[in-house]
This record gives sequence, C-alpha cells and structure tokens, in this order.
Amino acid sequence: MRLSRYFLPTLKENPSEAQIVSHRLMLRAGLIRQASAGIYSWLPLGFRVLKRIEQIVREEQDAAGCHELLMPTIQSADLWRESGRYEDYGKEMLRIKDRHERDMLYGPTNEELITAIFRDSVRSYRELPKLLYHIQWKFRDEVRPRFGVMRGREFLMKDSYSFDLDQAGARRAYNKMFVAYLRTFARMGLKAIPMQADTGPIGGDLSHEFIILAETGESQVYCDRELVDFDVLGEAVDYEADLQPMVDRWASRYAATDEKHDPVRFAALPEARRIEARGIEVGHIFYFGTKYSAPMRAEVSGPTGEMVPLHMGSYGIGVSRLAGAIIEASHDGNGIVWPDAVAPFKVGLINVKADDAACGKAADELYDRLRAAGIEVLYDDTEERAGAKFANMDLIGLPWQILVGPRGVKAGTVELKRRAGGERAELSAEAALAKLA
Amino acid sequence: MRLSRYFLPTLKENPSEAQIVSHRLMLRAGLIRQASAGIYSWLPLGFRVLKRIEQIVREEQDAAGCHELLMPTIQSADLWRESGRYEDYGKEMLRIKDRHERDMLYGPTNEELITAIFRDSVRSYRELPKLLYHIQWKFRDEVRPRFGVMRGREFLMKDSYSFDLDQAGARRAYNKMFVAYLRTFARMGLKAIPMQADTGPIGGDLSHEFIILAETGESQVYCDRELVDFDVLGEAVDYEADLQPMVDRWASRYAATDEKHDPVRFAALPEARRIEARGIEVGHIFYFGTKYSAPMRAEVSGPTGEMVPLHMGSYGIGVSRLAGAIIEASHDGNGIVWPDAVAPFKVGLINVKADDAACGKAADELYDRLRAAGIEVLYDDTEERAGAKFANMDLIGLPWQILVGPRGVKAGTVELKRRAGGERAELSAEAALAKLA
Repeated sequence: MRLSRYFLPTLKENPSEAQIVSHRLMLRAGLIRQASAGIYSWLPLGFRVLKRIEQIVREEQDAAGCHELLMPTIQSADLWRESGRYEDYGKEMLRIKDRHERDMLYGPTNEELITAIFRDSVRSYRELPKLLYHIQWKFRDEVRPRFGVMRGREFLMKDSYSFDLDQAGARRAYNKMFVAYLRTFARMGLKAIPMQADTGPIGGDLSHEFIILAETGESQVYCDRELVDFDVLGEAVDYEADLQPMVDRWASRYAATDEKHDPVRFAALPEARRIEARGIEVGHIFYFGTKYSAPMRAEVSGPTGEMVPLHMGSYGIGVSRLAGAIIEASHDGNGIVWPDAVAPFKVGLINVKADDAACGKAADELYDRLRAAGIEVLYDDTEERAGAKFANMDLIGLPWQILVGPRGVKAGTVELKRRAGGERAELSAEAALAKLA
Repeated sequence: MRLSRYFLPTLKENPSEAQIVSHRLMLRAGLIRQASAGIYSWLPLGFRVLKRIEQIVREEQDAAGCHELLMPTIQSADLWRESGRYEDYGKEMLRIKDRHERDMLYGPTNEELITAIFRDSVRSYRELPKLLYHIQWKFRDEVRPRFGVMRGREFLMKDSYSFDLDQAGARRAYNKMFVAYLRTFARMGLKAIPMQADTGPIGGDLSHEFIILAETGESQVYCDRELVDFDVLGEAVDYEADLQPMVDRWASRYAATDEKHDPVRFAALPEARRIEARGIEVGHIFYFGTKYSAPMRAEVSGPTGEMVPLHMGSYGIGVSRLAGAIIEASHDGNGIVWPDAVAPFKVGLINVKADDAACGKAADELYDRLRAAGIEVLYDDTEERAGAKFANMDLIGLPWQILVGPRGVKAGTVELKRRAGGERAELSAEAALAKLA
C-alpha cells in the first residue's frame, strides 16, 4: 500500500482525553477515532489489526472443534425475561423500543439467544457435545467509558457456548477452551495467564480469567513466576484427547485474581517467584451448568429417554480490547511495537529522500518486488522529510522497516531495521527480501 | 466437516411464515433462524455463505482502490442533526436513549459519520481522491419485515463513500464503483443489470440500481435483452484508466426501473429484446455532490487556497440480502443450487450405506483425501437412510456430490454428481479428486 493513497490520519500531538498509553497510541497512530463516548470507528490501519486478531481467535476456535455462527446484535427482551435476567441486568444493558413499542435490547452477551437456538434445534443427547461461537459486536452502556477500546461501550467479542449432557462432558468442553485460549493469546505474542476467578453462586473451580500482566491493568493479580515461562505453542494439540493433564499443569501453580486471592498460599511461594501485578482481563471461561437451560427448558432426551437439561458453559474473548491490550504489553517511547502475528503490515518501506529521482526509482522497484513476493508492505512514498517519516513509521510500529536513501542507492544497499530492539543492518535489496520472505 | 459433528438443523417441512422460495429454503436448509421479526441468526452453514459473499465484495472493493474501515453500529443523534436528517428519517430509524439520556441511534446508513471522520482528518485537496468503505450491520425498522433476509430489519451492508474535489473527480469514483459492482455480482454467478434510478432532488444521471431479474422481485423493471449477454469478467480492469467507455457501453442499452421508465424508448426496441420483469435490487450507487459536506462543513483547501466542500458519492451492496437473492436466482424443486463461488462447501460426500463397513471405510478415506487436497467437503457420515441423505444434500445445494455406495466400493468407483443439471458419472476416487481439485 502506498501511503500517499492510503487513509492514515496520524496525530502529531498526544490527545488530551487519553489516559493510558494504548489509547494514546491508537489515536495517534490513526488506528481508531472516537465516534461518541466509548464508541469507536476503526480506521484502515486499526481495522487490519482487528481482523488479524479476529482471525487468530477464529482459527483456534475452529481447531478446537467449535462451529462459527452469527447471532444478531438486537435481541428481543422476551428471551431475557425467560431467563430472568432482563430485570437483573441493570443500566449497562442498552434497552430499546422498536416502532411497534416492543422491548428490544442490544445484546451485551448471548446466553439466552444461543440457548433458544439450541433448544429449538437439538432433541437428543446423540447430537451432543456441541461447541458454538460467534464474533459479534456487543454493547454495554458503561457509566464511565474509558481507556479507549479497553473499556468501550460498543466492543467486539468472541463468545462460545458449550452444550453437554452432564458435568463431565461440560468439563471436557471447558478444557478445550482452556487450551484453545492459551494458544490464541500466545499466537498474538501475549503472555496470558489463566487465573482462578469468581464463579458466583454456582461455585466450583470451573472459572478462569485469562490475564495479561500490564501496569495499566484494572485488576490486581497474584501469580507464580513459573507460569510466565510455561511453553504454550511447543506442540500440536489433539482436542479429542484428554486435556485434563494440560489444565492441571497450569492449575499446579498459584495464580488468582484479587477476589480469589489466598495470601497464605501465595506467601508459601519462594519470594523470587511471587508476582504481584496489575492485569488486563482478555478472556474468561465459565461453566454454569443448567443456569439458563433449566428456566428456558433447553433439554434433550437422554440415553434412557428422560428429558435432561443441558449443561452449558460460556467462553469469552475481548477481540477489540485485545488491540489495546497488545499495545499495553508491547510499545516503547517511540510508539507501538506490533508482534508479527497481528501487525497491520509486515514491513514499512521508506523513501528517505523524496526529491531524489534515484531513491524514488529504487524504492518503487523494491515496493513492487515486495508485493510480488507476497509481503505486506506499507510504502511511505510521500513528500515528507525523512525525520517525520522515521518518527511516523516507529509510531505505527510495523515489525520491519526498510530505508532507501541516497548513500545506500549508490552502494547498492538498503537499511533493514527491526522495530523491536531497533537492530539495523545494511544489506542488498535481495538479502532484505530473502530475510522478509 | 463431518455432518455428525456439525450444527446443521435442517427442517423437513416448509415453514408456514415463509412466502418466497429463498426464505423457505434458507430456513429449511438450516442457514438462518429468526431471532425476532426481521432479525436473524446465521447458523454455521449460512454464515459460511455470508462470509463468501462478503469476501467477494471486499476483494472487488480493494481492487478498485477502496480502503476498508469499520464504523460502529451505534451513532450519536447529534451528527444527524448536523446534516438535517435526524428529524427527516422517520420511524425506520431505530432511536435509542442511553443511560445518560443522550439521543443515539442504530445506523441505517453512514454518510454523516464518514463525513465527520473525513472532515476531521483531511485538510488538503492533495490528499484526494479517496474511496472508503465498510461492511457492517445496519438497522432499518421496517414496518412490515418480510421475505427473510431480503427485507429484514438488521442487515449486513457494504457501503462505500467517495471524496473528491469536484464533480469530474466524483464521476471517476462513480465509474470505479460501477465497474467494481459489475464484477462483484458476476463473480457470484449473478446477472445484475445496472439500471438508471431516481436521483431525487439532486438530479443528473449519476444513480444506478443493480438489479437481478427474478420473479419474486419487489421492483418492476425494463431492459434490453442484450444487456443480459454482456460479458463482465472477460478481461482485467485497470481502475486507473478511463472507465467511461465501459460505463457508456452499458448505458447504450435501455434499462430502467419503474420510476425512470420511458415507455416510448422501450417500445422502440425490437420486441424480442424487450424484457419486462420483476427485479431484486442488490446494489445502488449514487452521486450526491455536496449534500452532506456543505451543511457539515467537510471542506479541503483547493489548489488556489480557497476552501471547497467535498464532492461525495455513496455506494451500497446488500450483503445479507444477496444470500437470499442468489437463492431466488438459483434453485430448483429440490432445493438450493449454490453457484461455486459462494457455496458453503464445494462438495458433499455421502456414505450411502451407513451400516456397511466397507462403505464407511471407503468414505472415510475419501474424506481424508479431499481434505488433504484442500477441497472443502461436508461429509454425511450419519446413520440416516440413503434417501434422506440424498434429499438433504440436494436441499443444501452444494455444487458437487460424491456418493459412496456398496456397488461402487466393489467396482472401485464412486458416483460424482453435479448439483446444477444433475449430471452423474461413475469414476474412480482418483478421477473424482482430480476433477474437483
């Protein structure tokens, strides 16, 4: 993509409304624009990041045997009256009356709707187990939206729902999601640690929040340093095998959010292994049994013919929040440092001297060769001076930069820079291409 | 995908609420379920079709130099007060009050929001021209939603917006979208004919609806039969070249919707070339000049330094509607006949005799080989009897079927069936694979 044709409105100044670094950088780097309080437009560069994140989430859900569908944003209040949540939900639910004065709402989550779909479609335990998910915009009318996409009102979420005959089946589904979540966040370059979380009135130990450690996190968390070094992507996962040992391995080390924190157990750790930090919740998995299936009469006929309410769980990932969380975890004083897997382009190509014909020709040629090699490249072909181009490219944080300048053109070289760490190398265009391919 | 694990709740009976064939077939084939009046969930099979359609739309927009972003669904009423449309829009607009009693709305379209984004980001004519688009759910509170996804309330739409310095520039953008639309619909296997459409108070000839001929269409249309035979995909398009001759070629033949119909011109055609038919609108392109930029003060500094309001156009495609429109145009008495480009899977594999071990083994092996070859396959590995499997596979309309039965297993052959036309051939598994690869 040629920057001269792209729509990338970066900001020179720090926007005053942004209190945390990800919000500041997302506005400055032209990723998002606020449309109204807590509601954002995703500009082309930010949209590419959002799609990358979404696609990683999707691939790992699919790999775990989850089937994607898409439920609408607007739901009927009647469904929520069936579960009893319509009155309970409070002011975070955006309530709407349609032209016929029917009570509608903008879905803050989808347990009721998926339960209704399942109830109307599945009759027998033989059709179980099933895992379904969708990636859809939700709305929660936060009283004080803040931190950009980290706590917005309209947000993109992946939510999965599992349907099983009994608790043992539900635990297998839970374990699949547990492992899929570990892989999902690791692929994005994140260290997300599963921590025991509050299960509310249902009890049990089947609720985990997946937490990224970051200074700006809204939760206080405690964990064993060994968890940070656990390898996640080292081996392929067979989701049909018993995943309990993998889950148990994580559970064998201490990790808890504030609500579930046990100071005595934590203090028993060697001091060097104790991490007390702030955390950002990027995922939450939860087994809730028959909480919705019982009141909504979502039942199947069991092996002996009797009707059995479904055992369900739900599993969320904050897709749009992740864009902010990744920046919180990966930036420096000059801007964003995108992990390779979610970067909007792989490489930024800079023509250092816009008014030099030889530079322009060399940069144009390299741009064509990068594209021909299938390497996603953003080419700063504008008339800006070099310093501004460098600053801008650092700000938007593409993993690699290639600088084409007059000295290199004479010597037959370009400069290749790694955004993370800042290592630079002078090498031929061929060698740079080979390195990026 | 193994059907035994998939979530594909087909219906045996015709749902009574469905008046047109696409609605009936989408419900029966398990593509959609109604969530509330005019609001649908897209079940896994339907979701795959929706994504195929969306991706074709996206690729052709990108090829035309349009940049994708994503605006939110919920907008502030204040923006619409700036353009003067908040009061005008009537009851089709879903109006919402948030918890702070601010007037919000669910976007039925996005001219105001994109104009605001552009106004805040672009200052100079040097940054023009620009074409931006997004693919997002919209809401129009139809008084009588009907025909399934063809006239729903929550619907997925691609809307593009062009920004130019003057009308000549806007016409170039218009022509790009004109050509991109021809290619988009042709790739989906549709004959969509651009027809002069009403421009309202602005006048001029820069408005076309893209219409598919189908008995169940809501519009009465008139056109020259020669347009139906125009080749669209025969050659690559250079979007930087002058596209006016291509647009003029289409404009040289008569085609108009009811509102723009000229009976005298139509009657001048040879009778065999006169098509009077019903049509389904699947796209609409529209130049509207400074209608929004003037009241909203979206201006750039022109070449001589003066401030100039932007010339704009908007360009819509009904993405979710297309799923229905394609079925209206491509079905038979047994069910849907998906064009290859939008089919949810390329091939349906049927184990004809579920209780025959040799059949099961042969079908399992072929399933693995199809997947290894990267061919998307839905494998009916259920216990159903053969007749039900055949009917079901015809209903969901995958382009190809492979039948593995006891006679063929003995002879070393499978049966390959083309859904459109119904041609069948006995051939070896290798030959079937080669044909589908």
